[in-house]
Amino acid sequence: MNNLNLKIIYRFLGLTAVLNGIFMFIAVPFSLFNDEEAVWGILNAGIITIFIGLLLYFFNKPTNTNIQKKEGYLIVTLGWLTLSFTGMLPYLLSGSIPNFTNAFFETISGYSTTGSSILTDIEAMPKGILFWRSATHWIGGMGIIVLTIAILPLLGIGGMQLFMAEAPGPSADKLHPRITDTAKRLWLIYVTLTFAEFFLLKLAGMTWFDAINHAMATVSTGGFSTKNSSLAFYNGLPFVQYIVIFFMLVAGTNFVLTYFALKGKVKKMIESEEFRYYLFGILGISAIIAVIIFFFQDPNLQSTIGHPMVFGKTESAIRHALFQVTSIITTTGFVSADFTMWSFFATGIFFALFFVGGSAGSTSGGIKIVRHIVMLKNSFLEFKKALHPNAIIPVRYDTKAVGQNIVFNILSFFIIYMLIFIISSVILTFLGLDFMSALGAAASSLGNIGPAIGSVSPVDNFNHLTSGAKWFCSFLMLIGRLELFTVLILFTPFFWRKN
Amino acid sequence: MNNLNLKIIYRFLGLTAVLNGIFMFIAVPFSLFNDEEAVWGILNAGIITIFIGLLLYFFNKPTNTNIQKKEGYLIVTLGWLTLSFTGMLPYLLSGSIPNFTNAFFETISGYSTTGSSILTDIEAMPKGILFWRSATHWIGGMGIIVLTIAILPLLGIGGMQLFMAEAPGPSADKLHPRITDTAKRLWLIYVTLTFAEFFLLKLAGMTWFDAINHAMATVSTGGFSTKNSSLAFYNGLPFVQYIVIFFMLVAGTNFVLTYFALKGKVKKMIESEEFRYYLFGILGISAIIAVIIFFFQDPNLQSTIGHPMVFGKTESAIRHALFQVTSIITTTGFVSADFTMWSFFATGIFFALFFVGGSAGSTSGGIKIVRHIVMLKNSFLEFKKALHPNAIIPVRYDTKAVGQNIVFNILSFFIIYMLIFIISSVILTFLGLDFMSALGAAASSLGNIGPAIGSVSPVDNFNHLTSGAKWFCSFLMLIGRLELFTVLILFTPFFWRKN
Repeated sequence: MNNLNLKIIYRFLGLTAVLNGIFMFIAVPFSLFNDEEAVWGILNAGIITIFIGLLLYFFNKPTNTNIQKKEGYLIVTLGWLTLSFTGMLPYLLSGSIPNFTNAFFETISGYSTTGSSILTDIEAMPKGILFWRSATHWIGGMGIIVLTIAILPLLGIGGMQLFMAEAPGPSADKLHPRITDTAKRLWLIYVTLTFAEFFLLKLAGMTWFDAINHAMATVSTGGFSTKNSSLAFYNGLPFVQYIVIFFMLVAGTNFVLTYFALKGKVKKMIESEEFRYYLFGILGISAIIAVIIFFFQDPNLQSTIGHPMVFGKTESAIRHALFQVTSIITTTGFVSADFTMWSFFATGIFFALFFVGGSAGSTSGGIKIVRHIVMLKNSFLEFKKALHPNAIIPVRYDTKAVGQNIVFNILSFFIIYMLIFIISSVILTFLGLDFMSALGAAASSLGNIGPAIGSVSPVDNFNHLTSGAKWFCSFLMLIGRLELFTVLILFTPFFWRKN
Repeated sequence: MNNLNLKIIYRFLGLTAVLNGIFMFIAVPFSLFNDEEAVWGILNAGIITIFIGLLLYFFNKPTNTNIQKKEGYLIVTLGWLTLSFTGMLPYLLSGSIPNFTNAFFETISGYSTTGSSILTDIEAMPKGILFWRSATHWIGGMGIIVLTIAILPLLGIGGMQLFMAEAPGPSADKLHPRITDTAKRLWLIYVTLTFAEFFLLKLAGMTWFDAINHAMATVSTGGFSTKNSSLAFYNGLPFVQYIVIFFMLVAGTNFVLTYFALKGKVKKMIESEEFRYYLFGILGISAIIAVIIFFFQDPNLQSTIGHPMVFGKTESAIRHALFQVTSIITTTGFVSADFTMWSFFATGIFFALFFVGGSAGSTSGGIKIVRHIVMLKNSFLEFKKALHPNAIIPVRYDTKAVGQNIVFNILSFFIIYMLIFIISSVILTFLGLDFMSALGAAASSLGNIGPAIGSVSPVDNFNHLTSGAKWFCSFLMLIGRLELFTVLILFTPFFWRKN
């Protein structure tokens, strides 16, 4: 019925499963050296996953290695699903998360770098499982780098062509050389950043186990913590929080810019319009939040921060403001304090930030700054056009004119995003959430953020949701992570029509 | 500094004030025959308004009667402000609403056909004042007909060119002949509908005073009632509510289509894509809501409806569902029951409906159905374009291809609308509202609906808002009513630059 090259799709999925299984083996020692029973579950999960992967790989020798767009879409969506359905095995087989729905939710929350959790007592989990949980973030982040750098621009999704013009590596439009070259360079940065944060967190006072987990959850802008109170556990160690703030900032920056900066071309970073808006946006909004915390909270900040202050009230207010604003804008979702307790105004600001997102080409999710820049500039131009209907004025980004098609693409992306948000909120009220929690869960899942408002606030978790709501949020995490189009196009009738 | 034709602007504003003052005189008898002291306040307000109007009119004899786009924008926005600042005089001078902020809020809520009220005891107000309050709706509705039929298409705002292609009357692009011809025909329909509803409501059991007030508030999709409990007062008179449902439906329909239907060309109505989506959308969503009311409320519906049922539970559920869905989609805002008590799911659905709006070319506010149709079709096409980037596939509406510029305009309209909604919600939390009420007040004011959720639910009013919040909501009502661009363009620097 269809002329899809199924063999090459299965082969890719097989490869994905094999790599995923290998990562599971890395989690084994963490359970082994702690004498945890979970070691068998993780080991079995790894063996099964690799076995499935090898079967898929070797039974699908494609005669034709040509990958068309349609295969591209399927590989991306099914790839994330392959990761999630195999990645949940360690939870299930070790008995750490025995419920199928919960295990799937936790896994896709990992691979989509969302960080929403159904765990009620994180610290009681086996170390091997906690490592695996952080690893799902880290693998998801790696996947996102390939996706945004090498695949999405070719599929022409949501204006992603725009910011990738200056990506390093060969500029040929073929999928393969770009993956092997560009992606490898950026993966190297990703790995380097992870190790750098790991060492610094260890130095600042974390245990080595917590340090490696938080490092993996930061660079992927994931947000899973090994502590029940997330980063609020480290309110007595301000430097730990500053290090996390810095690496969240970097993880939310276009990796191509970080690549140039590390090669000494810092000028490229400063010249980037998106980076400037991103950085000054975070600083500006943090300043407002810091003022709110400082003036409108009780003098000791005890009610929201819950820990004696190390450097006094001012530093504490600034740090928590910076931490939470960076955490939400980069869609990491780490929690240093419950921002929903910082007045309705602060809640309103953070809810609005759910719709911002980090930089394109980073591991962060959401709508992303570059799209907002293009949208705002285009809106401004619409007013000009109202007065001068025949004038042709292009939107300019990074001093270059943006093609009309890309602007169209970006506007459509935002509209579809908002429509999905509104409809999803209604669906979540149907699936049992109260109205405010539904708004929060929809925005947070779609934006791959993690914490939200209402009954899924930063100090709550997603365990109390109905099964239906958990599956629906899982779906939102997936489509949000894959820039909407990649998944939703599979639901259109013409996708399945023969060319 | 500017080459604006100020004389013609002032002359128009003068004319507006004079007409507004004449309407005030119509309110006088209602107070006179009820021996109300308010009669002097209304009379004085009328005299002052007409005097100001005549001054503006006669001291500004334009040498050049040519109206350019810029003058058009200024006339529209300043026209509504002239109405509001003079229209508040009856409240102030009669002492019925002594507070300046409250009086302005109530007035602009009237002219913008929103229907949000700061009154805590409506039934205690003088009859003359209540009539004037309903009259502000009715005048606002008349203004909207001229605006959408004759002015907005020429200004090229928000895709309004699209649906006006078939408007009756001469098709010349000049402002003047269209106003005098097209608008007159549609005003005739407006007046006819008002009287028809008035008679039917009287027949169905309303007092003649309540009937004329509710008729004026219905055909303008305003929503001010003369009863504290709005239309829930008539829960014992189902036919009253059915009549109001029918006229809300008509008021939310493109007046051009109603014109054709009344001339016997019903086919034109059925052929309209927007009308079909509008009608079947209302019926479909009402069916869902009716099921919710029927199954999830207590058997007697007492808790939400508060009145013995006349025709049994099924009829009651269907009627209240139809009433509230029609009231919100047409942006009327009449209340037959508190929909926020019908489960979180119902609240979610109604909140989503805040972003729908009635038909273009009607008196309803909000985003409007035609824009949603074009947006959804365009979104669907984006998926096609993702697979076939070089294919040129236009959006089709009413079987005709829609120009790329108009689609662009509509997408931008929605984006600006949503950005304003999000930012306004945050501003309203700053101005003292809790988060949920802020979302509700922003959506409801911008969409000219009336009731919202949270502390401004259908059984509450806007009296408890801070002054700042009341002024900000007034601003939202104005920009929402005037299709955003008309007002916002005045805040752009290039508007004030010389051509």
